[in-house]
Amino acid sequence: MLFNLFIMNTPSHISHGMWRHPESRSLEYNDLDLWVDMARIAERGKFDAIFMADIFGLYGEFRGSWDAIAEHAVQFPVSDPSMLISAMAHATSDLGFIYTNSILQQHPFSFARSASTLDHLTKGRIGWNVVTSVSKNGSRSMGLPSIVEHDERYRWAQEYVEVTYKLWEGSWEDDAMVKDRAAGVMSDPRKIHKINHKGERYSVEGPHLVEPSPQRTPTLFQAGASSAGMAFAARHAEGVFMISGPPQASAAKIAKVKALAAEAGRGPDEILFMEGLTFVVGSTEEEARRKEAEYDEWNDVEAQMAVMSGTIGVDLGSADPDQPLTDLIETAPGMRGTIQLVIDTVRGRTATVRDLLAFSTKQWRVVGTPESIADKIEEYHAAGVDGINIMSMLVPGTYTDFADHVIPVLQERGLAQREYAPGTLREKLFPGSGPRLGDNHPVASYRKSV
Amino acid sequence: MLFNLFIMNTPSHISHGMWRHPESRSLEYNDLDLWVDMARIAERGKFDAIFMADIFGLYGEFRGSWDAIAEHAVQFPVSDPSMLISAMAHATSDLGFIYTNSILQQHPFSFARSASTLDHLTKGRIGWNVVTSVSKNGSRSMGLPSIVEHDERYRWAQEYVEVTYKLWEGSWEDDAMVKDRAAGVMSDPRKIHKINHKGERYSVEGPHLVEPSPQRTPTLFQAGASSAGMAFAARHAEGVFMISGPPQASAAKIAKVKALAAEAGRGPDEILFMEGLTFVVGSTEEEARRKEAEYDEWNDVEAQMAVMSGTIGVDLGSADPDQPLTDLIETAPGMRGTIQLVIDTVRGRTATVRDLLAFSTKQWRVVGTPESIADKIEEYHAAGVDGINIMSMLVPGTYTDFADHVIPVLQERGLAQREYAPGTLREKLFPGSGPRLGDNHPVASYRKSV
Repeated sequence: MLFNLFIMNTPSHISHGMWRHPESRSLEYNDLDLWVDMARIAERGKFDAIFMADIFGLYGEFRGSWDAIAEHAVQFPVSDPSMLISAMAHATSDLGFIYTNSILQQHPFSFARSASTLDHLTKGRIGWNVVTSVSKNGSRSMGLPSIVEHDERYRWAQEYVEVTYKLWEGSWEDDAMVKDRAAGVMSDPRKIHKINHKGERYSVEGPHLVEPSPQRTPTLFQAGASSAGMAFAARHAEGVFMISGPPQASAAKIAKVKALAAEAGRGPDEILFMEGLTFVVGSTEEEARRKEAEYDEWNDVEAQMAVMSGTIGVDLGSADPDQPLTDLIETAPGMRGTIQLVIDTVRGRTATVRDLLAFSTKQWRVVGTPESIADKIEEYHAAGVDGINIMSMLVPGTYTDFADHVIPVLQERGLAQREYAPGTLREKLFPGSGPRLGDNHPVASYRKSV
Repeated sequence: MLFNLFIMNTPSHISHGMWRHPESRSLEYNDLDLWVDMARIAERGKFDAIFMADIFGLYGEFRGSWDAIAEHAVQFPVSDPSMLISAMAHATSDLGFIYTNSILQQHPFSFARSASTLDHLTKGRIGWNVVTSVSKNGSRSMGLPSIVEHDERYRWAQEYVEVTYKLWEGSWEDDAMVKDRAAGVMSDPRKIHKINHKGERYSVEGPHLVEPSPQRTPTLFQAGASSAGMAFAARHAEGVFMISGPPQASAAKIAKVKALAAEAGRGPDEILFMEGLTFVVGSTEEEARRKEAEYDEWNDVEAQMAVMSGTIGVDLGSADPDQPLTDLIETAPGMRGTIQLVIDTVRGRTATVRDLLAFSTKQWRVVGTPESIADKIEEYHAAGVDGINIMSMLVPGTYTDFADHVIPVLQERGLAQREYAPGTLREKLFPGSGPRLGDNHPVASYRKSV
């Protein structure tokens, strides 16, 4: 299985409140030393990559304002992840760097140039997490009147990747970069092509400004959970990131995307599925539970409610955390399914909003000894999950615990690599694939036929 | 005086043909090791900064096509400079990183975020070289029908910097980032402001996504030589980069910009002027001349003609390098002044196109012993030049020669620093200034009054 260190360039990514823990280094997120240390921890644990999430704009409002977003650090402030990569790359040799770039954030011509530059500098260790932004505020900060409608965002994403594919795959032929010192020829203009893209949103002449990088197209990741998102992933992604909860839920999502991928002419093993989980590791179950309880003392319920509000699109700000969940079924119809699940599985009809919040974080939390955690990961593996995005409770404690204690057990069981495979990120994730995407991926149609 | 290592993320920046020299490492420009080595050379020489030029798009056409641009590597291919910075920053402690970002290249909201991120990661060592792009091809690759007219580009730049100033200076008050672990408060929303910019080209809600970085606004550089460019520099720049040739030419330009700066209410010492020069260093004059002759064997006349054509806006492609210059006076009226200068000073009426090209490179080349080079630099100093952007002939040989042989002589004469001043790039360049821009700079009007 593959393992990624999952994080955002922000003081509080997912386990809100944990930045206050005395051992947390989250507040050092603007210091390169923290990032270089994390890259080294990840490489020590033979993780495949650091997967850098991002949010381009403020989270949705809560209690009618973004006060709680700021006070409780709900992924705000948030710095640019791409700027961290070259320092981490220079301190490592095999670790991959998957970073998020929203189609909202940069023109594809500029983005393609930056991504190719990074693919060179890392010797082919770059992955791109393609996202269509959800932040209304982010849209308005980029001059768009409001959020672009969901399906339209995916049509936009389709054109965006098309432009990047043309630049990465079609602009330079393989032997265009000559570098002939004796003849004094750097590159062969007959083998470098303007792309002359003219589409609905973009008009791009080209050529690509960067010579072909090891992977050309970075390894492609996606995390969309909507039907438009899954269709996009099925067509384009080489890795899909999910936060599904129990293994059965992962399995259901994997089946859906694989079916769509088959329709798009892609093979069942061309997409890797990664589940987001966090871990609390102890040398005994009891120690792990004690550690979890200690972590939970730092939990920030207000931040969680703000996140939950943003996620479900209902402002939970008016809800008392101790209010019975049954009340909410009426006021927040969009949550009915989840609420019913909590009522059924947690505390029956006395369940409160607090129980809902606890449920929503605990569904992606695994607590135990390295052995019991490995057992749980095996369940995900059996359900068809190819890898885990390790989310943090403590930065960087969660990652060091996993790298130093869980990975060795997984290695014993043959579930985690002991050494890196050679080559680019793509070759490491898909052994035998070669550094470039295969011929049945949409990129292939933009290559010049030889 | 200040000294910068001047370079572009491309295999051939200025001394075209030198990439073929056996000792050149220019072809390694996509390898981080080269950049980390250069940062260390620069810091060893107590240089103030690495100044990274950029070109966003292809150079102008030559012989009616861009074939020569590709074959002779006229600043093509060209990778993204910003991606190099964190690796170089992590390998150094005091060196500044001045990088070029064209207003064409990125939306100001995205750019401001990246620049603030870098200013954090480098602990305040970032400078921004503001450019309005000149590449017609670059414009067309970003969806603009053709090049934007010159003065209009500076109006665009004016709005662009205004947006960034609002984000950097006006969005977060000084004490907005609370980081109070005990109270569980990350930041104070009452002290973080949306900017709600509505201008001709941009509409930006804000807030800035990054908490205030050490300098907030990166140290600002500019290189415009036109009147609109000089007016912009006078108003905004803290450093002006020139390639003027002899010291008297530098002095004339400095006087012009200083007069404009005074009109804009800025003091005579608020702008530093840097001249671009390259150096060939020998232990004797004779050795230096021999080395120069050896370097000149690699000189690529075709590339030079392409560059000269782009610079003067006349396609020199039809000119035989051995054609008498007198012929050209008729066909290229825009060059009359320069041509007459070469005829007058170089070889009289037998001067050829080749002489013109040699003249244009030699005017920014200083050849000699460390002592005679220091003498020449003193002449620039006496003419009011505050610093030198060291352009390369050999990468990285030119820089190591300068750092190891010329700098010690300049230090002896009190013209180069022996140790770095503490603090941010701004504080290093303007001792006693504090990390942020002063109150008579336009940024000040975007600050919240306390």
